[in-house]
Amino acid sequence: MEHVSLPALSRVAICGGTHGNELSGVWIVREMQKQQVEKVGSISITTVMSNPRAVEACKRYMETDLNRCFTDAILSAPVTDVTPYEVRRAHELNAQLGPKGSQEAMDLVCDLHNTTANMGLCVIFTTFNWISLHIYKYLKKRITSAPVRLIHVDVPLSDAHSLDSLGKNNLSFEVGPQPNGVVRADIYNLMKEALDHLVDWVQEFNSGITFEGGEVEAYVFEKSIDYPRDPDTNELTAIIHPQLQDKDFILLKPGDPIFLSFSGETVKYEGKELYPFFVNECAYYEKHIAFHLAQKTILTIPSVSVEND
Amino acid sequence: MEHVSLPALSRVAICGGTHGNELSGVWIVREMQKQQVEKVGSISITTVMSNPRAVEACKRYMETDLNRCFTDAILSAPVTDVTPYEVRRAHELNAQLGPKGSQEAMDLVCDLHNTTANMGLCVIFTTFNWISLHIYKYLKKRITSAPVRLIHVDVPLSDAHSLDSLGKNNLSFEVGPQPNGVVRADIYNLMKEALDHLVDWVQEFNSGITFEGGEVEAYVFEKSIDYPRDPDTNELTAIIHPQLQDKDFILLKPGDPIFLSFSGETVKYEGKELYPFFVNECAYYEKHIAFHLAQKTILTIPSVSVEND
Repeated sequence: MEHVSLPALSRVAICGGTHGNELSGVWIVREMQKQQVEKVGSISITTVMSNPRAVEACKRYMETDLNRCFTDAILSAPVTDVTPYEVRRAHELNAQLGPKGSQEAMDLVCDLHNTTANMGLCVIFTTFNWISLHIYKYLKKRITSAPVRLIHVDVPLSDAHSLDSLGKNNLSFEVGPQPNGVVRADIYNLMKEALDHLVDWVQEFNSGITFEGGEVEAYVFEKSIDYPRDPDTNELTAIIHPQLQDKDFILLKPGDPIFLSFSGETVKYEGKELYPFFVNECAYYEKHIAFHLAQKTILTIPSVSVEND
Repeated sequence: MEHVSLPALSRVAICGGTHGNELSGVWIVREMQKQQVEKVGSISITTVMSNPRAVEACKRYMETDLNRCFTDAILSAPVTDVTPYEVRRAHELNAQLGPKGSQEAMDLVCDLHNTTANMGLCVIFTTFNWISLHIYKYLKKRITSAPVRLIHVDVPLSDAHSLDSLGKNNLSFEVGPQPNGVVRADIYNLMKEALDHLVDWVQEFNSGITFEGGEVEAYVFEKSIDYPRDPDTNELTAIIHPQLQDKDFILLKPGDPIFLSFSGETVKYEGKELYPFFVNECAYYEKHIAFHLAQKTILTIPSVSVEND
């Protein structure tokens, strides 16, 4: 795995508002559209407001979570009168940016997200590709104002349900903490800085620069933990413990406090040492996720450069 | 103003969920109802989930902001087929906790709120009453884990639009920062601690203890500042400057940065020295408020004790 040549990344899509109340991406895309950013050097840029109705309503989604709609199964199912708005929109986006898995698909799709968790800047990639790993490596070196981390959710392309999986190469930026419905300048600026570096990297790559390989640290999704709930009503009986709040990517050990019940009792972690992330993410209450847990691993990546054709 | 005797506070209402996505109050009221808290010593306690539909939907409100519905004008207008849900609910709450301004009203109404702004614990009172000022003084002395401040919005009772104005004495707790739709244990615990102290104070007051007067610091609302907006579309052109973000109650001086435009320009503050609060409150985007400004003042308050009758 010493060197890999890869096709040029001529067509890049930048998407915001896939969740309508995650406002950094919404405003970055609005500003790029206002400034009519369509080409940067060698790259043709497509900017997309993914879920315009949800953006208008400042809600995560109208009928169903758009960022769960990009599996092969959903994209190949027929659209009928009762198809939810977001599934229709997923079909439209697949036509615009994909079709997923095809030669016509965008060379790179980057989707912009915010979280209420204390995640700093996370590069999330679902389908394995050297491009995302190299972009992460580049960001990690250049961004010093916040922690930069890599999350890998290892699923086959056909099951990948996120918008970015439409691209031949794909990644999401997940930046926080930022409340839903709010823009914080620090979080907005961090996302914008990451995006500027991404565009720089693609330009340098297309120009023929060789990017050295090496080792990168990655968090590999392992499982999700739900809140303690009342077995009858399904309502929460506890919340994230103050000692776990804001401690994303800090190693969780058996015996560490994870929940505090409304009656004041502490629930302790049982299980092997893992790294929590998306701790107390607003949108995950309904998904029955209090936090995710990851293994930390080291990935060895080859040097890359553009194919000469 | 040396000493004032006041009637006992026999009937106290604790309200949460006036805004359905401000979850500390929602969960405190749920827990009190679960534990069937109806009497604490000399006090009869009424717990109220103010806007149950909005709580169910985890939204601020369904049709109109409930906490703007308690003016005399709205409460005396007839209810018709087209009356918004929250106005109907305001009439119900007025019947349950008021009628506002009457002898039948609750002796004290405390309404529980969260903000996305870095406000710590704020006691907000609209209609002037010594009880709220003494409770503030008591909290200020006992709570050390977060800043405790007093905000006075000086309006006549008839124009007071907040739920707590239904009580003979009234106050709101405004606690943050906490994202909408999220419970943070630190914020929840701070609100609960404040509420426990409030109940203690009322019990001590009813038992005949004299509370010494003195001077208390108060922030008096002066005006609101909107975001810079595009004159044609009305959309934001700038966000809260990183140097103002989280700086609630830090003196704002002429020339200090207040906004950062999406194109990177800094907007500076012009005007007299005042104290910003509710900086970047999520719900205020639609109300065209980027932050409020207050004067700081010192109020001299008398000692108080319960009337012997």
